[in-house]
Amino acid sequence: MRDSSSIIYGRNPVREALSAGTEIDRIFVLDRNEEGTLGRIVSLARKKGIRVDFVSKERLDEITRNAAHQGVCAYAAAFSYSTVDDILKKAEEKNEAPFVIMLDGIVDPHNLGAIIRSANCFGAHGVIIPKDNAASLTESAVKASAGAVSYTPVARVVNLSRTLEDLKEKGLWSYCADMDGDDIKKTDMNGPVCLVIGNEGKGVSALLRKKCDFKVKIPLFGNIDSLNASVAAGVFMYEISSRRKM
Amino acid sequence: MRDSSSIIYGRNPVREALSAGTEIDRIFVLDRNEEGTLGRIVSLARKKGIRVDFVSKERLDEITRNAAHQGVCAYAAAFSYSTVDDILKKAEEKNEAPFVIMLDGIVDPHNLGAIIRSANCFGAHGVIIPKDNAASLTESAVKASAGAVSYTPVARVVNLSRTLEDLKEKGLWSYCADMDGDDIKKTDMNGPVCLVIGNEGKGVSALLRKKCDFKVKIPLFGNIDSLNASVAAGVFMYEISSRRKM
Repeated sequence: MRDSSSIIYGRNPVREALSAGTEIDRIFVLDRNEEGTLGRIVSLARKKGIRVDFVSKERLDEITRNAAHQGVCAYAAAFSYSTVDDILKKAEEKNEAPFVIMLDGIVDPHNLGAIIRSANCFGAHGVIIPKDNAASLTESAVKASAGAVSYTPVARVVNLSRTLEDLKEKGLWSYCADMDGDDIKKTDMNGPVCLVIGNEGKGVSALLRKKCDFKVKIPLFGNIDSLNASVAAGVFMYEISSRRKM
Repeated sequence: MRDSSSIIYGRNPVREALSAGTEIDRIFVLDRNEEGTLGRIVSLARKKGIRVDFVSKERLDEITRNAAHQGVCAYAAAFSYSTVDDILKKAEEKNEAPFVIMLDGIVDPHNLGAIIRSANCFGAHGVIIPKDNAASLTESAVKASAGAVSYTPVARVVNLSRTLEDLKEKGLWSYCADMDGDDIKKTDMNGPVCLVIGNEGKGVSALLRKKCDFKVKIPLFGNIDSLNASVAAGVFMYEISSRRKM
């Protein structure tokens, strides 16, 4: 069986991968389903000369290991990670101040995927994750990103702390998401930004937090003292992107 | 085996349920783990006269059906749904303009839980979900809410459309999350608010959208045209709560 990390499944992810020019070997579609979204995927694939196989639901379930495939999956070249330089280059090409997301130990692949999706939506240039003790670009993460991994570079580094120092040297200001930080509304977040988001339970590690230029928080008014990690990341990115576009 | 919907697992959820006075029959804790967070849960439970059983990891896995229990779970009286009136009463007690979240067909229990968590954090008075074709307060949703279900009332109604009409008659303005709506930054969202969030794939249904007073969108700048549903809901609530607190 093929390495599951190189299977893309679900209608949006497959369509996005095709549109973005992701290298795809072969596509599997439910029965002879050539209408609606699946039909559009089939013609798009054929136009690109990609082999399309029509298969039974049981076969699709088997290939995707019972994931929510929505009638389609693709064998893709496994997603390759980018480098931090790729991310900075992307900002340069767009002639924008760098806007980078650093994730310190997000372990849930759904959160990772949702954060990459938000990063794309809010115009961040890339996402940096650590090699160890964190979710990587597995099929669940790719699926949860709704295709965003095809556009938004993800770099995996050995040492977040050293990477942060490099970014600071390159002129980026670092903002650590921290419940004891300053109100994000009252913090200047324009210019080159590295936003650091911590682990679901423990937040940003002490060492990394200490290295950040600023600590920022989302003002909360309830009984629960924290948001879901991907929701918090989304709100931070929304606020940063609003300032940048103003 | 007990109905799984009445099992609370994970450290935060159990602790929150205890603090909030949720009716709990019995607690299971890993081995003789009386230190740290688990220890505090044990003493809190004992103070409330709740029976505490120390069990093996295998037994905990079995009770929670291999969920991420973090060494503790509780048998609770199944969560009872509130009514829309309960939600409005909550706003009245706090002497605040009602701030209600209506979910039109969120199917992923993790999204439902994360949205209830955000609703609590951003000071919404309650969440309304439909009886059919949507995620309900299952154990996964309760876990994802990180304890918020103990504080934030969730009402389940037969007909969202009729409920929205009732709310409008009671003076609430309805805002539909819609990609073709007006920029949320440029929309007045003070006063009594009902925020309507749609299904993960299809958005808000045509009928309900038509009934809403306003359509609002989060400005996005990427290749992907939508955020994860719980992230989008979180950003909307953040923006509404910011205006209300200003």
